[in-house]
Amino acid sequence: MKYDSVLKQIKPDKYEKEKVTKLAGKIIAVLNHLAEKNDIPAEATLVGSVAKGTWLSGKADVDIFLKFPLETSMRELKEKGLYLGYECIKKIGGYGEERFASHPYVTGKLEGYEIDFVPCYSIKSSKQLKSAVDRTILHNIYIQQNLKKDQIDEVLLLKKFMDSVECYGSEFKVGGFAGYLCELLILKYDDFEGVLNAAAQEWKPGLIIDLENLKTGEKFSEPLVCVDPVDENRNVAAALTLKKMAEFVIASRNFSNKPQEDYFSTRNIYTNPESILKQFKQRKTKTILITFKAPDIPPDALYAQLEKTKIALTKKLVDEGFMVEKSSYWTNENDLAIFILEFVLWSLPAYQKHWGPKIWNQVHQNKFLEKYGEDAYLDQDRWVVELPWKYEDAYSFLKFILAEENIHHLKTGKQIKNELRRTYKINDIDEVISDMELGVLNFLFKFLNPNWHLWR
Amino acid sequence: MKYDSVLKQIKPDKYEKEKVTKLAGKIIAVLNHLAEKNDIPAEATLVGSVAKGTWLSGKADVDIFLKFPLETSMRELKEKGLYLGYECIKKIGGYGEERFASHPYVTGKLEGYEIDFVPCYSIKSSKQLKSAVDRTILHNIYIQQNLKKDQIDEVLLLKKFMDSVECYGSEFKVGGFAGYLCELLILKYDDFEGVLNAAAQEWKPGLIIDLENLKTGEKFSEPLVCVDPVDENRNVAAALTLKKMAEFVIASRNFSNKPQEDYFSTRNIYTNPESILKQFKQRKTKTILITFKAPDIPPDALYAQLEKTKIALTKKLVDEGFMVEKSSYWTNENDLAIFILEFVLWSLPAYQKHWGPKIWNQVHQNKFLEKYGEDAYLDQDRWVVELPWKYEDAYSFLKFILAEENIHHLKTGKQIKNELRRTYKINDIDEVISDMELGVLNFLFKFLNPNWHLWR
Repeated sequence: MKYDSVLKQIKPDKYEKEKVTKLAGKIIAVLNHLAEKNDIPAEATLVGSVAKGTWLSGKADVDIFLKFPLETSMRELKEKGLYLGYECIKKIGGYGEERFASHPYVTGKLEGYEIDFVPCYSIKSSKQLKSAVDRTILHNIYIQQNLKKDQIDEVLLLKKFMDSVECYGSEFKVGGFAGYLCELLILKYDDFEGVLNAAAQEWKPGLIIDLENLKTGEKFSEPLVCVDPVDENRNVAAALTLKKMAEFVIASRNFSNKPQEDYFSTRNIYTNPESILKQFKQRKTKTILITFKAPDIPPDALYAQLEKTKIALTKKLVDEGFMVEKSSYWTNENDLAIFILEFVLWSLPAYQKHWGPKIWNQVHQNKFLEKYGEDAYLDQDRWVVELPWKYEDAYSFLKFILAEENIHHLKTGKQIKNELRRTYKINDIDEVISDMELGVLNFLFKFLNPNWHLWR
Repeated sequence: MKYDSVLKQIKPDKYEKEKVTKLAGKIIAVLNHLAEKNDIPAEATLVGSVAKGTWLSGKADVDIFLKFPLETSMRELKEKGLYLGYECIKKIGGYGEERFASHPYVTGKLEGYEIDFVPCYSIKSSKQLKSAVDRTILHNIYIQQNLKKDQIDEVLLLKKFMDSVECYGSEFKVGGFAGYLCELLILKYDDFEGVLNAAAQEWKPGLIIDLENLKTGEKFSEPLVCVDPVDENRNVAAALTLKKMAEFVIASRNFSNKPQEDYFSTRNIYTNPESILKQFKQRKTKTILITFKAPDIPPDALYAQLEKTKIALTKKLVDEGFMVEKSSYWTNENDLAIFILEFVLWSLPAYQKHWGPKIWNQVHQNKFLEKYGEDAYLDQDRWVVELPWKYEDAYSFLKFILAEENIHHLKTGKQIKNELRRTYKINDIDEVISDMELGVLNFLFKFLNPNWHLWR
């Protein structure tokens, strides 16, 4: 297959390149000037996909690292780094705010681009690492030194393909392939088709990619190991889940079987509430939505807490005797979060067997009989009593467990716990589906059609 | 507690004793005369509870054994034994028919009593045993030699108590205590209260009763072992189930806590269809009855096949994904047999997860994908497909499994299989309860009130 028309769409054109380069240059100049003027021993450097030339058209994130000498104290580095970021934004004119990764940084919007100002140490090798962000400098150098010019297109194709089949990005929500990992994969397999063929034909969990022959791959236990060429103690694919690795393999096989340009754009979902409800009805299960206000925390934290809470909720329900066929969650990352729970067994018998002791030890049995008297009966040689079940259906159990005095039994993040308890609503899917935003419909469609995104 | 008024009811009076003794004497005389006349070397003997004087008033079964010399061939013994039985009945005037235990015997109705004519060998010790019935002669002698006159009342009390709490009888339906075992228990513990106190306070599974110190008790694995004083290789309590042993222990404790004459009569059940339906409704389960024509086989075989079939049906349902809370069976031992099945999960989702191979082996996965195509999706790194479930509810599955072409998948007795397949009807309990005979109502009452029979 020819990729010309794909590249035409995803590769930044002259104008975009010029604009981004000019903006980056201007920012760096301002920063370095500011540093000099204020006697701050920092040097601004462009890193990330813009520096490497591997950004997808329209998706340039300008990452500026402010390199400080190794002898700078962490406190001074943070303080002066953040100062430079804010001052630069003020000078050029834009809006900035502080964020946290492994340490704080400033992010701003300038001329329509998102700019990150990240203070770091000016290290020459991974042995000098003081914080996780420092490594980025080395990544940049490594890619610039090793990635051939004509491989940049291959990186772009791979990133775009991965993005379209929903495997791109190492954030919690995706658990997929980071941009740097894409670049290393191109270095390993030469080009886009090389990566896809290898994934389709050869990949298995336990695969080790070790470009610099550092021989530390065995140390890692993740499904895919890609030893960081600049740091033998780091697996670049650490965030990749088995699920996403498998999905990429299947998408690669699907593409190889039938290469199509469609694979370079997200697959559209055309659906409507009626058709979704019809599918749910056909499943002959009971499906509910728990909607609540998403807490105001960064997406990575939010998704991690949603995942944890989903697991905790499902476990509690199953422990109580209900049968959950499938569960998932969704958030618009703003004001709405949703759990979906599909039940095979939604309502329970009115009574629950409660097992007592065997009859042979009279001391034990008498305690049991004092409590339950003539309600107790024998099952073989063991006492048992049928007690009224506290929760006639999963709805009453969920109401119980989400109440203020009980929600601490649910293992979940702190912020989600509070919002969930205060704002939750439980509805049958058909009661609320027509009030839902499009994102929810798409989520429900994918819940019903898993792996829709892997085929074209 | 005084047992006088109980004994007054259960102990045969002078008139009954005289009548039974006279009848037995007459039968024996007729048999011995017939034997002499026909030159058959057999001698008639009275055995069983009538011979031992331990029968409950109104429940005399006259057991006549026809003892042949050890050198008689089995064929001759059967042929001539049955001949004598039939001729005797003909002579005295009554109705007779052939039956089978370990070997054939003749049973007849004479003057309102059931008389068994059983051919056997005239053995002096268990070492000469040729068939299981021979042992009865030895049992008789042992009890007559060891049971004191005043212990007969104690045997009667024990038998009647056990009968009233539904633990009496070694037949499959009950799985309880045989009459001979009751007599041995009185020998062991002296009197009725001695047996009940021991059971209430001391009994545990693994108990060995060994009156003649034969030291073979360890050989047996049943919950209660009572070494036969006349045969060290036999456990008199072999038919006693753990369930019935436990029930007797509990009944003994209940009686000891609050001795009452009521324990010497069966506990009455006062119920009606409405109250039973109300109880079932309260349980919030789904309960069905499978009614069918009971096959014409002896009760022991019938109950054994009902038990086997109940287990097989339940297992099949559970394997298929349904959840059975409780199941049981009943028969009037004539023309009606019933299975009752109580479901927690009666209807299943429309689709069932069908697990395929992991994705990594392409040969395996391709076979799966050829079959299921785009319906297949990934769960982690494994293929799975949701297939339409064949049986939307347990009713449709039962119809399937009970059909002529499928019923061979059900492990059940041959006779039950044929009648079940041909005549079964499946109904919700509320559809048919008002048409049911009283025995069924009592059965349903006990299903809802287990161990009702152990309390007064």
